[in-house]
Amino acid sequence: MELLKQKILKDGVVKDGNVLKVDSFLNHQMDINLFKEIGKEFKRRFEGEEINKILTVEASGIGIACIVAQYFDVPVVFAKKNSTKNIAGDVYRASVQSFTHGRVYDVIVSKEYLNENDKVLVIDDFLANGCALMGLSEIIEESGAKFVGAGIVIEKGFQRGGDLIRSKGIRVESLAIIDNMSNGVIKFR
Amino acid sequence: MELLKQKILKDGVVKDGNVLKVDSFLNHQMDINLFKEIGKEFKRRFEGEEINKILTVEASGIGIACIVAQYFDVPVVFAKKNSTKNIAGDVYRASVQSFTHGRVYDVIVSKEYLNENDKVLVIDDFLANGCALMGLSEIIEESGAKFVGAGIVIEKGFQRGGDLIRSKGIRVESLAIIDNMSNGVIKFR
Repeated sequence: MELLKQKILKDGVVKDGNVLKVDSFLNHQMDINLFKEIGKEFKRRFEGEEINKILTVEASGIGIACIVAQYFDVPVVFAKKNSTKNIAGDVYRASVQSFTHGRVYDVIVSKEYLNENDKVLVIDDFLANGCALMGLSEIIEESGAKFVGAGIVIEKGFQRGGDLIRSKGIRVESLAIIDNMSNGVIKFR
Repeated sequence: MELLKQKILKDGVVKDGNVLKVDSFLNHQMDINLFKEIGKEFKRRFEGEEINKILTVEASGIGIACIVAQYFDVPVVFAKKNSTKNIAGDVYRASVQSFTHGRVYDVIVSKEYLNENDKVLVIDDFLANGCALMGLSEIIEESGAKFVGAGIVIEKGFQRGGDLIRSKGIRVESLAIIDNMSNGVIKFR
């Protein structure tokens, strides 16, 4: 997606440790007009697929997922990272290793909002080592829902997540795949 | 907002400890068509106000804030609850006591995305004891931005947050104010 790539080149900042800082438009401050274009692009890429629910994980996936959901006219469910008083009863649970935060956490989804009748599109901001997406994949499988595909805004193509997920037969559509960002220079696939 | 009140009466569940469970449409599964109506209503209520940024706090405020932002044509900034590798440098910081989670946490906003030129509308799903909103208020004040007002989806009118915030001269627009939910019966103001 050319508009997104130009935005990444213009406003993205490469930091030590293969961190791409895009918090001016994607995951701290959020450029809603860009999100709308992202929504249209995912709709185009998944045209013809039957999708009745979008699944994402808190926190930075939520905003994108909600804007994207408008183009599919479906509700969004976000997996929660901490159990709270407000989620009682039966949940699906998966463990996720966070690249950004350097820790392991559980993600949970209430069984009330995901079941074998659902046809799920996963939306997330980043795909790097693939752990978050693997966690969501486990939850979808446990629920009996159909995993239609994953729509990712930025894939770090030099990490193993994309290959890992695709090798499981899951369709992944990434709007920008970065193959290299050594020395602060971003190279797209 | 009548549509919202009907939704709360239909799908909200009152749990022990004055918890209102609305996670079928507001803060776990999210009804995007309802969010759009919420966006139009906030736009109507804040018509004529100069607003150039929406501020919310992760996680459940983010989806609503993004949909609402479309009607104001402004970016969203969400306050983060945990510091991560990805936020370096100068941040505004405030401490918040969570009613839902029963703990104290910091919220932070990068100084890059909030300053004295900003005219801020805060959007959040709930107003109860007002601690989250007070934290955001401190951050806005520290940044030098103008706090135009707060748009709240559900206010628990029997808790002190609404009075506290309004007593500071901050405009609060709540789309549904619950004055009582004893014995599981929801009474709106």
